Amino acid sequence: MRVEIAHGSGGERMAELIDRIVSRLSLKSTPGGRGLDVLEDSGIIEAGGVRLALTTDTHTVSPLFFPGGDIGKLSFCGTVNDLAVMGAEPLALSLGLVIEEGFELSELDRIIDSINGESLKHGVPVVAGDTKVMERGKLEGLTINTSGVGLVRELVTDDGARPGDRILVSGTVGDHGMALLARRFGIDADLESDCRCILEEVRALLETGGVRAMKDPTRGGLAAALNELAGKSGTGFHIDEGKIPVREEAMAIEEILGVDPLQTACEGRLVAIVSPERAGDALRALKRFNRDASIIGEVRGEPKGRVVMETVVGGRRFLESAIGELYPRIC
Amino acid sequence: MRVEIAHGSGGERMAELIDRIVSRLSLKSTPGGRGLDVLEDSGIIEAGGVRLALTTDTHTVSPLFFPGGDIGKLSFCGTVNDLAVMGAEPLALSLGLVIEEGFELSELDRIIDSINGESLKHGVPVVAGDTKVMERGKLEGLTINTSGVGLVRELVTDDGARPGDRILVSGTVGDHGMALLARRFGIDADLESDCRCILEEVRALLETGGVRAMKDPTRGGLAAALNELAGKSGTGFHIDEGKIPVREEAMAIEEILGVDPLQTACEGRLVAIVSPERAGDALRALKRFNRDASIIGEVRGEPKGRVVMETVVGGRRFLESAIGELYPRIC
Repeated sequence: MRVEIAHGSGGERMAELIDRIVSRLSLKSTPGGRGLDVLEDSGIIEAGGVRLALTTDTHTVSPLFFPGGDIGKLSFCGTVNDLAVMGAEPLALSLGLVIEEGFELSELDRIIDSINGESLKHGVPVVAGDTKVMERGKLEGLTINTSGVGLVRELVTDDGARPGDRILVSGTVGDHGMALLARRFGIDADLESDCRCILEEVRALLETGGVRAMKDPTRGGLAAALNELAGKSGTGFHIDEGKIPVREEAMAIEEILGVDPLQTACEGRLVAIVSPERAGDALRALKRFNRDASIIGEVRGEPKGRVVMETVVGGRRFLESAIGELYPRIC
Repeated sequence: MRVEIAHGSGGERMAELIDRIVSRLSLKSTPGGRGLDVLEDSGIIEAGGVRLALTTDTHTVSPLFFPGGDIGKLSFCGTVNDLAVMGAEPLALSLGLVIEEGFELSELDRIIDSINGESLKHGVPVVAGDTKVMERGKLEGLTINTSGVGLVRELVTDDGARPGDRILVSGTVGDHGMALLARRFGIDADLESDCRCILEEVRALLETGGVRAMKDPTRGGLAAALNELAGKSGTGFHIDEGKIPVREEAMAIEEILGVDPLQTACEGRLVAIVSPERAGDALRALKRFNRDASIIGEVRGEPKGRVVMETVVGGRRFLESAIGELYPRIC
């Protein structure tokens, strides 16, 4: 058997491949910590009296430069976000570059400058790095791994949702994936990637209180994030399609390409599960950053591990994770 | 200007590329820490009353399986070693895979099993991961990023060498690079990569005491490691060629290919600078792991930042870092 494109998609086929890999590893977490046994956005390590978060992401996005960002910003923010949603303050990142021979140094400079911009903006340094060069034709362009370590202030795990909690998103969904697809298919769309660091939003939410779970949807989009949170907490998520913020431009591309924005990659968005008492304050906090933030539904006891969506036409259906995407290298 | 193969070689051209990247990053370390400003094997982070090490390495080695190891073992041990030589106990690693569509899953299994073997042997878990798939022809095979976080027990920096200190190596040098080159050029050689985790050797040395600096030579080999340690401490390293352990098989390949084992990649070797009083004990400690361990020279005040080698034929020359290697993807 061989690796297929769908194994990298963020959907069910990817979960199969990850299961295969993880099942072969015996040591998946440190004593008292959380790791590959629970597959959250960061591993959690207890050591020396502190609680740390460690996360990693290799970015292979194509094209390297896209409306709203580039592979540098995407990498840096993706790793900062994976620390933030666990309730960790990012301490430092590492940067692992693999570059194809012949790559333009001026383009590399632009990518590094983009990383530097985010690093300065959020006060998170790059303290370790590695650079490799592959012969022409053995890699397309470059890949960037960013790993990061954070200090956990208030641990937020994926399994915290309880019946009655509200489900919030911090802005329109699917912008990243739709903007990349539009670019690749030459569709002239007024749509930018939502790629950004959501550190400030997360801090504001944690200050508000009542946060039960958080996730930054990436591959697999909102659908994958909601199904994961519902599955891990053993609750039923009930969402209202009409309350999910989706840009008109994304819906137009949906019609052209037949790709569902709810199953398409986001970057720089936050899904938060918040107690009913704090949900109003949480929404106000998120709206300070993005007026499209919305309460899209609530958590109930049933159906366990599933996401039920009231559709805008008055129907009801399960919102499933995608099986696999047709379009690789969205992040 | 474009990226060239020599930019990835571990020699002077690589230093130029790294300088170019690092100079564009403004935040290179955390307050009180050490990072890209000093370019050591790990970044050092002070946080929450503890001192942490963070390191990253992406492995692109070709072939993926080679005598003495494979890309899995190489990746895991490389990162453990980069933590160890800073005086840190590895807490946990992350694993970032980028896989070409069509890659055999049975080969992936072997690579993961090899990582698992080292993880179990040294009690270091993998707590975070990421998997991406690239379309056929856009990547040759797979690359593995391993990043790691460690708890610093006794900080050992690259600039610690002082006149009078002794220079030790933990075994024969150049085996890794020579074994890979032999394999690539179809030379029938009884030579295996020295790829392994050197955690136990480092612990034994630190227990002995008197350790001023450590490095695990990788790309650029012994020559690059010695020049870096001499340069950062502003001392002169004086080594005796006859005392440097090199396998006969490596010397035979040197004659065929014209590649110097002293400038060729090592993996799983340690260079240690030790105070004169503790050097004998340190050598005994290293010999418990490998009888080829040797004291190869001493540190003097001059010539600052240079490595002088007494050759076996009675001459004297500077041992320089390579400019760039002809053979990419040695690690």
